[in-house]
Amino acid sequence: MLTYSLGDRGEESLYGYLYRRIKEDIESGAIPAGERLPSKRALAEHLGVSLVTVEGAYGQLVAEGYVSAKPRRGFFANPVDRPATRPRRSAPVAAPAVHGPVAAGVAHGSAWPPAASAEKPLLADFTGGEVAAELFPYRAWARAMRDVLSHEPERALLCESPSMGSVRLREALAAHLRSFRGMEADPACIVVGAGAQTLYNLLVQLLGRGRRFAVEDPGYPRLTSIYRANDVELSHVPLDGAGIGMAALRSSGASVAHLVPSHQFPTGLVTSVSRRYELLGWANDAEGRYVVEDDYDCEFRLAGRPIPSMQSIDASERVIYANTFARSMGPAFRVGYLVLPAHLARRFQSELGFYSCTVSSMEQLALARFIEGGDFERHVRRMRTHYRALRDRLLAALSDGPWGDRLRVEGADAGLHFLLRVDSAATEADLVRAARAEGVALAPLSAFRQASVGSGRCAGAFGEGGAPSFVMSYAGVGRDVVPHAVRALERAFDAAEREAARAGARR
Amino acid sequence: MLTYSLGDRGEESLYGYLYRRIKEDIESGAIPAGERLPSKRALAEHLGVSLVTVEGAYGQLVAEGYVSAKPRRGFFANPVDRPATRPRRSAPVAAPAVHGPVAAGVAHGSAWPPAASAEKPLLADFTGGEVAAELFPYRAWARAMRDVLSHEPERALLCESPSMGSVRLREALAAHLRSFRGMEADPACIVVGAGAQTLYNLLVQLLGRGRRFAVEDPGYPRLTSIYRANDVELSHVPLDGAGIGMAALRSSGASVAHLVPSHQFPTGLVTSVSRRYELLGWANDAEGRYVVEDDYDCEFRLAGRPIPSMQSIDASERVIYANTFARSMGPAFRVGYLVLPAHLARRFQSELGFYSCTVSSMEQLALARFIEGGDFERHVRRMRTHYRALRDRLLAALSDGPWGDRLRVEGADAGLHFLLRVDSAATEADLVRAARAEGVALAPLSAFRQASVGSGRCAGAFGEGGAPSFVMSYAGVGRDVVPHAVRALERAFDAAEREAARAGARR
Repeated sequence: MLTYSLGDRGEESLYGYLYRRIKEDIESGAIPAGERLPSKRALAEHLGVSLVTVEGAYGQLVAEGYVSAKPRRGFFANPVDRPATRPRRSAPVAAPAVHGPVAAGVAHGSAWPPAASAEKPLLADFTGGEVAAELFPYRAWARAMRDVLSHEPERALLCESPSMGSVRLREALAAHLRSFRGMEADPACIVVGAGAQTLYNLLVQLLGRGRRFAVEDPGYPRLTSIYRANDVELSHVPLDGAGIGMAALRSSGASVAHLVPSHQFPTGLVTSVSRRYELLGWANDAEGRYVVEDDYDCEFRLAGRPIPSMQSIDASERVIYANTFARSMGPAFRVGYLVLPAHLARRFQSELGFYSCTVSSMEQLALARFIEGGDFERHVRRMRTHYRALRDRLLAALSDGPWGDRLRVEGADAGLHFLLRVDSAATEADLVRAARAEGVALAPLSAFRQASVGSGRCAGAFGEGGAPSFVMSYAGVGRDVVPHAVRALERAFDAAEREAARAGARR
Repeated sequence: MLTYSLGDRGEESLYGYLYRRIKEDIESGAIPAGERLPSKRALAEHLGVSLVTVEGAYGQLVAEGYVSAKPRRGFFANPVDRPATRPRRSAPVAAPAVHGPVAAGVAHGSAWPPAASAEKPLLADFTGGEVAAELFPYRAWARAMRDVLSHEPERALLCESPSMGSVRLREALAAHLRSFRGMEADPACIVVGAGAQTLYNLLVQLLGRGRRFAVEDPGYPRLTSIYRANDVELSHVPLDGAGIGMAALRSSGASVAHLVPSHQFPTGLVTSVSRRYELLGWANDAEGRYVVEDDYDCEFRLAGRPIPSMQSIDASERVIYANTFARSMGPAFRVGYLVLPAHLARRFQSELGFYSCTVSSMEQLALARFIEGGDFERHVRRMRTHYRALRDRLLAALSDGPWGDRLRVEGADAGLHFLLRVDSAATEADLVRAARAEGVALAPLSAFRQASVGSGRCAGAFGEGGAPSFVMSYAGVGRDVVPHAVRALERAFDAAEREAARAGARR
């Protein structure tokens, strides 16, 4: 029976202490994988604590993937893929900006980010779409792949999957969306493809190129690049505090609105529930209007109540749901999917069914196994826990420092980035330069603005003229680096402020 | 030392007998993989045969992949992936028509092929793009995949590859093209993507949608579907006996000609060398013209001298080379590549470099290893030997039967299909129906014709009004089935002929 000396817990709560000790024992292997934990009642009696305390600790361990609860059988320790301890950034690799600004900046020929060449080596990079690669469930994925190679009939691996994807994977995705996102998705309406970009190319072919698409401004520059490369008319519609601006959307003439309602990039804005219904109303106002719900970041809601997907409140087949595994499984992993309204799924079948599915059968089957066996959900839970702790540490360091009351954070409840507003007399560009001189790379919000509908300049809540703002993509920053990075930022903000004051005095 | 009793060889040639016995011993494992064979001179002396005899047998074994010749070290038995013995067609699977008519027919809403439901079970299907799945080098591929999982640094698998593909894979492809196809391809000009279809979508974005594309008529219907889905202007240009018709191409107004010069689908036509130079001349006549050289079938040249690729005789950066692994590795395998002229590679980098590569890093690395280690070349050699024997058997059965002198075969020197012309009073449709009634599925040439430039109907060597013609895709037909399939075809041709005579008499 597990025995922990509750007298050693200091100021920790009983349940928090119990949770932490069991977690550490699972991580260290003291409780081996597969071992059955004592029943809640037995452990409570053994330790002399209340049943509620044990329930709290077990519940947290289950939520974080350390322990599995099996109905009528009890609680079992899960295998832990311990992160290999190797230094981050030891071997520089090509920046894998997935939903990140770096590649997009390059694609737009922008001068940002500044070349890093002769400068101070980077201490922390808040500009990348990098994810914590050491969290990748490498062993579990390798196991899924080996299982496929050993156990699937060869025919299943050698035959082309249906155009919309392997039926088995589509069923696994539908089950995942049901349990994880509360969505009803018919597997027959799911289209699997080699990443979101490939799927958006197909979407243009499915909906027709003669349309105008609207995207959010500020927004994800690669999306602009994709739609431009597809020669569709494109409008950039400014965000207000609740989501994409309805008046500007209406006047844009667009019939498709491509949105990131759960956690917008780059602002972190969560589209309000009432705005979601307004958008569905807009889509129903005229024939052939659609909302593309880009849910790429939804696995990483870190706080607050869940907001239902637009797909799940759409009664009129107006929402096209899109998601990928690039965020959860890493950018090398090229699988995404769409959930189409039924009439569009039929149209896909009849008009685009000549296409081959763009993901190898072997990879589709491995992913299906990975989802079916619970590995994917466990992995996402672990990542969420990791990122929540990382975010908390970063936010605490920022607010506890000397600049604390001059910083404002927005959009930090979900996803792997938030918006940092700085109350400073210096410009965004000045602050970026000063931070770089201290070894911290920052992405200014202005890099994500486009020429918007109407004004020709991005206005509104995230428009020009506000406080200097930075898109803080923190997923690739090491936990231990956080305090040093924040101190460096503070020095940079101080220096830029002094420089701005001197320049003001000279004028 | 290998000892075979040459007196037992019956009527076989000495060299043929020796070749067959060594092959059987390698297949059975009597000569284990990796074992060094005796030197040619030593074996010749030992068996009392001439050196030329041993050289002939060894040469054949090397060509077919049973044996590797290592310079200055000798000859070594290769590992043999013995095909599992299981009945073909035991479990029906979705028709994996890669470069095949089935899916294309469906995509075009054509009534062909006729529904198979209540009819006689299929004895042989000459309509599919199926390949002999049991030839897939399953173990070698699984080994490459496992090696990647075990030996590649995790970072390499978890990071996104460059937009144009993994450098290592592009280098392996360039080396393969050099040794196998005599082509000089700069790895920096290679673009890897999830199959040809994805790459053609990108190609339209690279070259610009405001162009007219020309494709061959008759041709591959999926290509028509892809270009139509991309909203480019499309011309179908009739083939003459040497390739695409130059006068019709010139008058079409197209600036891009998408051709299959090595072994056209569906006619099997090999574009003549002089026509290749004419085409390069056409491309040089005006700014911005290109030839897309679709080389999808080039691994399967079965006879005759090799014809250099158009890419290798192009001095003016006018040829875009395209190939995939769907034919050699099976349709479940979604990897293709383009070799771009240098100026287009630069344009790709600057204008489309924002795209992520559509193939997972893991799969790219496994394929690179598979090519580097010689597995791919061995596999292709094995397949070629298999298909050559299958084709020979089929052609012999056709020409030796009662219909032999009323059949004409075209385009059988390469690829996995040929054209069968039938001197019959019956129509193509009659013959298709009669064959189906005998359990043989045939693809009529007419299913691949489009409304052509000029006449509005496909004219020329492969146009309407000729003898009934069938596209014989034989790769998926079992060797043992061949004689039965040919007998069934002969019964069908007889029946259709009688029916046509009766109908003629009634008129």
